[in-house]
Amino acid sequence: MAGRNMVIAQSGGPSAVINASLAGAISRAMASEEIDRIYGAVNGLQGFLERRLIDITEQIRSTDDLDLLIHTPSHALGTARYKLPAGQPAVFDDVLAILQEYNAGYFFFIGGNDSMDSISRLAAYFKEKGSDIKAVGIPKTIDNDLAVTDHSPGFGSAAKFVAMVTAEVHLDTIVYPIPAVTILEIMGRNAGWLTAASALARRSGIAAPHLIYLPEVDFDPDAFIADVAALLETEKQIVIAISEGIRLADGSYIAETGAAEDMFGHKTLGGAATALEAMIKREIKLDKLKIRAIQLSTLQRSAAHIASATDQAEAFQCGYRAVEAALKGISGVMISIQRASNDPYLVYYQESPLVGIANVEQKVPLEWITPDGKDVTQEAIDYLLPLIRGEATERMSEGLPVFFRFDWSKLVTP
Amino acid sequence: MAGRNMVIAQSGGPSAVINASLAGAISRAMASEEIDRIYGAVNGLQGFLERRLIDITEQIRSTDDLDLLIHTPSHALGTARYKLPAGQPAVFDDVLAILQEYNAGYFFFIGGNDSMDSISRLAAYFKEKGSDIKAVGIPKTIDNDLAVTDHSPGFGSAAKFVAMVTAEVHLDTIVYPIPAVTILEIMGRNAGWLTAASALARRSGIAAPHLIYLPEVDFDPDAFIADVAALLETEKQIVIAISEGIRLADGSYIAETGAAEDMFGHKTLGGAATALEAMIKREIKLDKLKIRAIQLSTLQRSAAHIASATDQAEAFQCGYRAVEAALKGISGVMISIQRASNDPYLVYYQESPLVGIANVEQKVPLEWITPDGKDVTQEAIDYLLPLIRGEATERMSEGLPVFFRFDWSKLVTP
Repeated sequence: MAGRNMVIAQSGGPSAVINASLAGAISRAMASEEIDRIYGAVNGLQGFLERRLIDITEQIRSTDDLDLLIHTPSHALGTARYKLPAGQPAVFDDVLAILQEYNAGYFFFIGGNDSMDSISRLAAYFKEKGSDIKAVGIPKTIDNDLAVTDHSPGFGSAAKFVAMVTAEVHLDTIVYPIPAVTILEIMGRNAGWLTAASALARRSGIAAPHLIYLPEVDFDPDAFIADVAALLETEKQIVIAISEGIRLADGSYIAETGAAEDMFGHKTLGGAATALEAMIKREIKLDKLKIRAIQLSTLQRSAAHIASATDQAEAFQCGYRAVEAALKGISGVMISIQRASNDPYLVYYQESPLVGIANVEQKVPLEWITPDGKDVTQEAIDYLLPLIRGEATERMSEGLPVFFRFDWSKLVTP
Repeated sequence: MAGRNMVIAQSGGPSAVINASLAGAISRAMASEEIDRIYGAVNGLQGFLERRLIDITEQIRSTDDLDLLIHTPSHALGTARYKLPAGQPAVFDDVLAILQEYNAGYFFFIGGNDSMDSISRLAAYFKEKGSDIKAVGIPKTIDNDLAVTDHSPGFGSAAKFVAMVTAEVHLDTIVYPIPAVTILEIMGRNAGWLTAASALARRSGIAAPHLIYLPEVDFDPDAFIADVAALLETEKQIVIAISEGIRLADGSYIAETGAAEDMFGHKTLGGAATALEAMIKREIKLDKLKIRAIQLSTLQRSAAHIASATDQAEAFQCGYRAVEAALKGISGVMISIQRASNDPYLVYYQESPLVGIANVEQKVPLEWITPDGKDVTQEAIDYLLPLIRGEATERMSEGLPVFFRFDWSKLVTP
């Protein structure tokens, strides 16, 4: 008796290990007699609704392909900024109809908060309609803001990149005999996890970052300038790590205060680091002071050339266990990572109900931020450190990465 | 009979492998009976003139220290933006006097054009004054703009980082089903070598970069906008690699055309990529078009977490051979790398007279730039590819790099 098929899709922003989760799911599915074909939706739910499905079973031809997929950053299946429209049951009907067309008994979605919201609502809808299709979520976010899970795949690799470049940028600035302030702008609109990870750079025996500002705490420009000026009296070169989302007590983003008109009269948003750069230039008059704003931009989420081996292995496990859960008949859950201990670092996996996860932003606990609001505590560092352990590089050939690429044009009909 | 001592200093901007050259020189000197103490000047010639010398012989205690030094980015001895003042013989007298105080028979300087100019003039001065002190230059520049040498240590590692992040950023952008233009701003004020290296990303099987602009060719904004618009009709997401130094036919930098007033009335120089971003925003009206400017900033020169193994080995050799040359009694030369063939990649080293090197900027040959001025030729790629081969990572512990650090406060007197 032939089994049912499965559909898997990726969503949200890129990460270095999102394909490791995909590979984990594929790996478990291929070992199952209950799952026949593995379909991948190109460009997430948006592509799925346009019936843009490829046959992964055909395109992954060997364990070597699977291994290459694990080491390829960003979404091998593409993504989309698409949210299931609330109050439009027709779209939910479409999703169910397409799954039925493709004889799918299993639906998996790899993504962050919005994606978990989508799959939560789909799972409830399938049940309501009497469908036996199992829907399971696989966590992914470099921002680490998913609730219920101890941390999310993708975060550890981005955190590792942030910590490493913080250390390297510090070495780059201390070699000059002139005072310097370097401001690193790190992703995280509402949650400061990635910026907190810059503190790990100190494990390389350096003093940077000297100041760390997260969006969880109001940013006080006067205190900031006073702190920078005071630091410059004892330290020659200082490194400041800030989240892109830091804001004033009135809720306005620092990035907005730096908005300038470009030559064509457009408002340009230079980013929070650029705004702080301008603030220091105006307020601190120090001979030869060099101020540099660096936005890590998308590099921090796609830098698979220095991914965390721990993160990559956990990403694989989450994908693997999502399929396992669905095969057990479980639906409406997300695979979560639970931490048993920091040292030794031990985790286990759970099937956590999606209700209560979706749309809750997990922020850095205030007690992990020092009372002065410009650093993180040892507890935060103990939490972060195990997540960046081990190096997982891309597969290399002649000095350059080799990527696995699905052929998105080979669409299949049921 | 005790030998003479040597002094070594580093200069210019950081690179991932400048300490490999230092380690090469130390390694050769330690094996020599003619060299007694190895002094390192902290912060280049500026620190040397302030008698800020440390005893490397004491601070490098094992081959493990030396190996760690090889894998540590940026200047282990510090640097300075200092140029020997012309027409001030007193400074030259000071250099000679300090070297004599420290009983130095050998003086080495690792750096780029300015540094080679300094050591060239010092070598001539020593000779003129009847001193037997040997002065030898060791090449270092991520810009690859030193003359006479086929390429310079430091360039290959920066080029590798540029190529890798070009590939990763491309994967980051193609996953969305919306049109996007990503502009990568790469270092190189007058020479476009590093930007040319972005073309190597195509070896990862991707289309990026779609357009490449070097400072060697006048930048034509009208042609640029026409090219971007045309590309967006066939390619959904395009990646553009530009040198920070691209300029208009009248010689003005593109970065300057993007100068805006910040909120405090200061002129801000957003960089060339930001200027092009504004230009595209103004000229190309395409629904949902996402435009992103990314400055690789100092990350590209300190990213020792993905250095080129080829570059690192050559950097070591240049340092090693500089000491060897001085021990043979040669002065007033720089160790240069000469290429025998691209495939197989074979190089040999020469002692090249410093006269004719200093102050000549080696730019990308115009025949290596395509006639339309927006790409590089196969010949350029054949030249570049061997330089990024092999991966040399930092030494890692618990997921973070371990750095060798000299104690700069342990200054020594003669």
